Amino acid sequence: MTEALDAVLTRLDADFDASLARLFDLLKIPSISTDPAFRADCAHAAERLVADLAAIGFDASVRSTPGHPMVVAHWKQAPGKPHVLFYGHYDVQPVDPLGLWTTPPFEPRLETAGDGSQRIVGRGASDDKGQIMTFVEAARAYIAEIGGLPVNVTILFEGEEESGSPSLVPFMAATAEELRADVALVCDTGMWDRQTPAITTRLRGLVGEEITIACADKDLHSGMFGGPALNPIRVLTRILGELHDDEGRVTIPGFYDGVGEVSEAIKANWASLGFDEAAFLGGVGLTTSAGEAGRSALELVWSRPTAEINGITGGYTGDGFKTVLPAVAKAKVSFRLVGDQDPDKIRAAFRAFVHDRLPPDARVAFHPHGGSPGLRLNDDSPALHKALAALADEWGRPAAMVGSGGSIPVVGLFKSMLGMDSLMIGFGLDDDRIHSPNEKYELESFRKGQRSWARVLAALAE
Amino acid sequence: MTEALDAVLTRLDADFDASLARLFDLLKIPSISTDPAFRADCAHAAERLVADLAAIGFDASVRSTPGHPMVVAHWKQAPGKPHVLFYGHYDVQPVDPLGLWTTPPFEPRLETAGDGSQRIVGRGASDDKGQIMTFVEAARAYIAEIGGLPVNVTILFEGEEESGSPSLVPFMAATAEELRADVALVCDTGMWDRQTPAITTRLRGLVGEEITIACADKDLHSGMFGGPALNPIRVLTRILGELHDDEGRVTIPGFYDGVGEVSEAIKANWASLGFDEAAFLGGVGLTTSAGEAGRSALELVWSRPTAEINGITGGYTGDGFKTVLPAVAKAKVSFRLVGDQDPDKIRAAFRAFVHDRLPPDARVAFHPHGGSPGLRLNDDSPALHKALAALADEWGRPAAMVGSGGSIPVVGLFKSMLGMDSLMIGFGLDDDRIHSPNEKYELESFRKGQRSWARVLAALAE
Repeated sequence: MTEALDAVLTRLDADFDASLARLFDLLKIPSISTDPAFRADCAHAAERLVADLAAIGFDASVRSTPGHPMVVAHWKQAPGKPHVLFYGHYDVQPVDPLGLWTTPPFEPRLETAGDGSQRIVGRGASDDKGQIMTFVEAARAYIAEIGGLPVNVTILFEGEEESGSPSLVPFMAATAEELRADVALVCDTGMWDRQTPAITTRLRGLVGEEITIACADKDLHSGMFGGPALNPIRVLTRILGELHDDEGRVTIPGFYDGVGEVSEAIKANWASLGFDEAAFLGGVGLTTSAGEAGRSALELVWSRPTAEINGITGGYTGDGFKTVLPAVAKAKVSFRLVGDQDPDKIRAAFRAFVHDRLPPDARVAFHPHGGSPGLRLNDDSPALHKALAALADEWGRPAAMVGSGGSIPVVGLFKSMLGMDSLMIGFGLDDDRIHSPNEKYELESFRKGQRSWARVLAALAE
Repeated sequence: MTEALDAVLTRLDADFDASLARLFDLLKIPSISTDPAFRADCAHAAERLVADLAAIGFDASVRSTPGHPMVVAHWKQAPGKPHVLFYGHYDVQPVDPLGLWTTPPFEPRLETAGDGSQRIVGRGASDDKGQIMTFVEAARAYIAEIGGLPVNVTILFEGEEESGSPSLVPFMAATAEELRADVALVCDTGMWDRQTPAITTRLRGLVGEEITIACADKDLHSGMFGGPALNPIRVLTRILGELHDDEGRVTIPGFYDGVGEVSEAIKANWASLGFDEAAFLGGVGLTTSAGEAGRSALELVWSRPTAEINGITGGYTGDGFKTVLPAVAKAKVSFRLVGDQDPDKIRAAFRAFVHDRLPPDARVAFHPHGGSPGLRLNDDSPALHKALAALADEWGRPAAMVGSGGSIPVVGLFKSMLGMDSLMIGFGLDDDRIHSPNEKYELESFRKGQRSWARVLAALAE
C-alpha cells in the first residue's frame, strides 16, 4: 500500500461520522423520479450534489433535460493518468405501500440488527444514494488529504434511472465527448455476500410494456350486460395467463432466440460460490423456485430471461363490491433479457402474442417503457483485474465475478454510444429491500465502500 | 277507471314539478353504501325519507342496523283490503371514475335529449331513488286527494343494496311479523323499452367472492428475484384466465348443475319482443356477443349464468413503471346464477377451482360478498295479472313479462323468509347508465311511474 493511500484511508475513517450526516441529508430529499409530484425534489437532489462536488473541488454543474436533470462533474488534474467516468443515480423508487414502512421513508435513521451490526434505513439508502456517496467521500478524502485524485475523474449522476431513463440517450449523444473515458465505474450493484465483494460482469436487459385492453365504450352493470358483453379483465387475464407454460417457460414465439446456454466453466464457478438457494428463497418467504423447471435460482437470475407482470388494474378495487364490467383493464409487463435477445424483437413478439389472442370487440393499446439488451463484460479486461485486486485488499478475500438479474441500461449505452466497458462495483446486499418498504444499507457497506473506492482509484492509476 | 283513481292521477300531474324538486333533494345526498366515508350521508338519506313519509301520514321510523339504517313505514287503515310491502333502496353506487361525469354526480339536473325528451341526470336517478319516489308520490297523492290508500301498505327502504345487504337477513328475521304482507312490490327493475312497461318474473342470483393471492412476504425487485420468485399476479391471471373455455362456457366443475334450459314457449315469447341484439351491443360500443356460443344475448342475460371478474389489482399501477414483483394480487369475482344453481355450492366449487391451481408458495384467502339464488315468479299469480292490466291501462299497450340479468337478493328473501311473492315493477331503461358515469332517469319514467303505481294500487284493491 502506498503512503498516500494509507493516509486517505485513515482520513476516511476519521471523517466517517460527518460522511454519514451528509448521506442523511441527501436521503431526506424525496427524489422519486417516476411520479411527477416529486419533480422539484429531484431537482433539489441534483443541486445538492453539485454544490457538494463543487465544494470538494470538482468542476460541477446541473444539466437540465426534458425530464429530471443530470449532474456532471470533472476533476482532470492528473495528466498522463487514466480517465474514469463514475456513474450513479440520485433518484429513488416510489415508496408505496407506505403503510408497510416502520418509519417514514424519507426520515433516514440508524438501526441496530440482532447481531449488533448497524444499518441505514430509508428510501434510497442502498439504491442508489448510499452507493454514490461512497465514491464522493473517497474523492473528498483524496483531495483533502493529498490535494488531488490518482486518476482523472468525470462524474455522471442521473435522475431518471428508476423511471426508464428517457433523457439519457439524447443527453449522452449531446455530451459524448465530455463523458467519454477509458473505463466507466458504475456503482449500482451488490456484494456477493456480507463478507465478499463482487464485480458484476453480466447484466440482464429489460423491456417494459404497458398494455391497455378496452371493450365496451363505458362501464357496464354485470347484471344487465353480464354474459353477452366482453369483459376486458377477462381478456387481459386470459392473455397474460398464457404467458408461461406448465414448465415456467415463456410461451411467446421466438422469445428464447439468442438466449444461449452458460458455459460449463461458468456454471462451475457459480457452483463454487456456495449459493444457498433455500436461504435465498426463504429470506423472502418462499420455498420453491417458480422459474423454468430444472434450473437453479442463481442460473435463473443471472442467465435466464423472464416475463413478469409488474402491475395490473381494472374494474372496482376499493372497499366492498361493485358488480361492474369495466370498459378497460391495464397491465404493466416487463421482460428481463440475456445473451443476444433483441429488445425490439421481444417487444414486437409480445405485441403479436397479444394481438393473436384478441377476441372480437377487444382493442389493445401499447405504451413502451424502455428497452435494453443483456450485457457481458470481457473476462480478460486489465481494469477488471486491477479492481478485483483492490477489492480483495480491502475485504480480505477474493472478489467474486457475478451476474446480476437487474438491468442497468446505462452500461449498455456506455458500450454502444461511448465504446466504454463498465466495471460494476457496488456494496449492496440481497436483503437491502431495494424497491420495497424499509430499504436499508449496511453501515459497513457505507464505510468499506468508501475505502474500497480509495483503493480502486489507486489501483487504476498504476 | 274509478272516480277516485281519476282524481289521484289528476293530482299527480298537477303536483309533478313539486315531486321533481323532492326527488332532486334526495339525489343530492351522496348515500354511497359501499364506502365507509359516506356513512353519515346514508343515515341522512334514511332520515329524510322517514320525515317525508311521516308528513304524508305514514307511521314511519328509521331502524338502525350494524350497517346502514332501514326505513320502515306503515299505513294500514284499509280494513279488509290486501296488504302490500313496497321495497326499494336509498343507497347508490360509487361514482368512480369521477372524471367521466359531465356534471357532478350529486348535483342532479334535467337534460334535454336530441328527440326533445327530458331526463334526470345524477347518481341514483334510476337506481333506485327515482324509482322509489314514484311510489311515494303515488301514496302522497292518494292520501291528499281521497284521505287514504286503496290497500294497506308497508314500506321498506334499504340502505345496503349496492353493498351486498349484510344487515338485511338479520333485520328481516327480527321484523318478519311486521313486514309480512300478501305480496311484495319491488321497484328496482326496468321497462321492456321506452313505450312498453314490464313486470320482471325471472331474476339471476349473485355470488360475490374476493380473492387474494400472496406469495413472497414482501414486494421484490424483479431484477434480483425475477425468475425464481413466484409472482402472485402471474398466479392470479393464470387461474382467472382459465375460468372460461374457448366457447365462452365457465370451466368450474359442476358450475352448470341445475341451470336447466328455458322452455320453447318462453323462448318463443321472448322472440316476439323483437329484441335487437345488434342495437343492444352497439349501444355500448360492442358488436359481438362474448357469452356462450350459440345463444342469443337476451337468452344469455335472462337465463344463463356467468363468471365475471369485476375488479383486479396488483403491483404498481401508478404513472410510469416499477419493476416490482408484488407480494399480493387481488380480484373481485362474481357469478350470476339461474334456475336451481346453489350459491353455496358455486362458491365452494370456485374456491376448489382456485385451490386446485395454486402452485407451491402461493397462498389464497377468500372473502365472501353475498350469495343469492336465481328466482322465477309463478306465471299464474292473480296479483301479477292485475298489475299487468294496470300497467297496460297507463301505457296503452300490453306489459311484457321479462327476465332480468341482475340479482335482487331481497326478492329471494321475501320468498324464503316471509313466504311472499314479489311483483317486480320498475320504470328504468337499459340506457340509464346505472352503476356508470352520467346515470339518468327519464322524466317520463318518473311521471308515468307515479301514475302506474296509482293504478296498480287500485287494481290490487279489487
